[in-house]
Amino acid sequence: MDPDLQPNQITDEELIEQIDGALDGFIDHKMPSDLNDAVCYALFGGGKRIRPLLCLRACIAVGGEAEDAWPAAGSLELIHTFSLVHDDLPAMDDDDLRRGRPTLHKYTNEAMAILAGDAMTALAFEMLAVNIDDAETSKRCIAELSKATRDMIGGQVYDTFREFPESWGDMTRLKMTHSDKTGALLIASVQMGGICGGASEQQLKALWCYAHALGLMFQAVDDLLDVTQTTEKMGKATGKDADQGKLTYPGLLGVDATRQEIVKLRKEAIDALGDFDEKAEPLRKLAWRLANRES
Amino acid sequence: MDPDLQPNQITDEELIEQIDGALDGFIDHKMPSDLNDAVCYALFGGGKRIRPLLCLRACIAVGGEAEDAWPAAGSLELIHTFSLVHDDLPAMDDDDLRRGRPTLHKYTNEAMAILAGDAMTALAFEMLAVNIDDAETSKRCIAELSKATRDMIGGQVYDTFREFPESWGDMTRLKMTHSDKTGALLIASVQMGGICGGASEQQLKALWCYAHALGLMFQAVDDLLDVTQTTEKMGKATGKDADQGKLTYPGLLGVDATRQEIVKLRKEAIDALGDFDEKAEPLRKLAWRLANRES
Repeated sequence: MDPDLQPNQITDEELIEQIDGALDGFIDHKMPSDLNDAVCYALFGGGKRIRPLLCLRACIAVGGEAEDAWPAAGSLELIHTFSLVHDDLPAMDDDDLRRGRPTLHKYTNEAMAILAGDAMTALAFEMLAVNIDDAETSKRCIAELSKATRDMIGGQVYDTFREFPESWGDMTRLKMTHSDKTGALLIASVQMGGICGGASEQQLKALWCYAHALGLMFQAVDDLLDVTQTTEKMGKATGKDADQGKLTYPGLLGVDATRQEIVKLRKEAIDALGDFDEKAEPLRKLAWRLANRES
Repeated sequence: MDPDLQPNQITDEELIEQIDGALDGFIDHKMPSDLNDAVCYALFGGGKRIRPLLCLRACIAVGGEAEDAWPAAGSLELIHTFSLVHDDLPAMDDDDLRRGRPTLHKYTNEAMAILAGDAMTALAFEMLAVNIDDAETSKRCIAELSKATRDMIGGQVYDTFREFPESWGDMTRLKMTHSDKTGALLIASVQMGGICGGASEQQLKALWCYAHALGLMFQAVDDLLDVTQTTEKMGKATGKDADQGKLTYPGLLGVDATRQEIVKLRKEAIDALGDFDEKAEPLRKLAWRLANRES
């Protein structure tokens, strides 16, 4: 990196390159070669790296250097990828296609996909425990990531089995499912980035609000794309939510009101960053980009 | 506990009660109720609690109090139980019976068993990050547990797919499979217990040697029981290793030489504790007990 560049002048592409480099270097030679291949197939398969980007951008926004948050960013992508691999399994969503390629259990087999997912979880926590020098920072990041992972799994359970407390209405069920399944890890992303960058409590709270709105918005966009986009464009099966009777924003609100909800949540996310300076500009742009994404 | 009792006078049963109490208290109300039920079914299903016992006994052996190592002990049982739940899945060992009861995917379903295993992994690291106050101790324990979990998964990959480096002979393949699949977590158990109890580097090395021998011995006994015991006695299917063509001690050495190997490894384990005082006596007894176990 050119030392004269300001941190917020680093492009997303450059940050993604850093994350992939950190991940690749960390995983190397730690596992039997067939397991390693399976993990790498899933991990380096063209993901958008949204969680690591959120993490590094949050770190930069509070005044840290991106490299302070590399282990955190890598661990987030490991957890996200593990969740995709397990969610795609025949016993779960039974998906054959992910990011335009065969899902891992199609590329290898079910047993290897289960084990590779498990290995990625262990690697995520190892990366945080081993590659973050400061013990307090490491501990706080691991607390954030483990809780978010547990919430994410709880969200997947709601999504799969739909056994909710009886007092919850449909909108509460939808929001709880989404905020656990998707939101928890997005919130952890900015919290971990903030922690690694030395954020104040107030900054962490603002980042929490940003990511909370972003998470709901992200899932509303996802639900909308499942209705409006083709499989070819998405690189994964579409139209499945309605077929499976899942709770979705378009299903509950209709397409138009979902679009309005997305605009409202994007504004909420950006407003949460009101006290941040121009170093938070990439986080604001990310909210725009994710609101308008088409795949 | 009676305050006049010496630490090594606490019985294993009392320690197991402490571990179960710590686990139960930690898990409570953290997950959707059906996921919580699945985790509890697997976790409180009559396991022998060998890893938590090793952890607490190692903590006591180096001069610590058992309660210093409760989160470490709980996290080890969570990781061990997750590995059993995933190993039992149809795509893996396809076992219907575990600890004399239906395996979790038989009791619930495959999706829930996959998710419950995933949740237990997250809970394990959360327990270490949240319930150990000292950041350095927490970080070291998480580094131990995450590496051991990754090694354990690598061992399961060797055991399932048997793709070894070509240079390895059968005995090396057997020992590498066993030391990864079983040994790594037993070693982590005593290391984490030692770390929580404030062990010196020399004490940690001795505990490592103890658990390394114990791990190989444990698996040799396991292999032997698979040949010589009934399903009824074991509470799980037996005779499967030979059917599946797995590398085992009796398969490579025969039954008699396996018995001799067990005696040799038990001695190695106990000799490793030569510099420890009477507070390590329960660890020595545990080696005897595990060598002579019949289920």
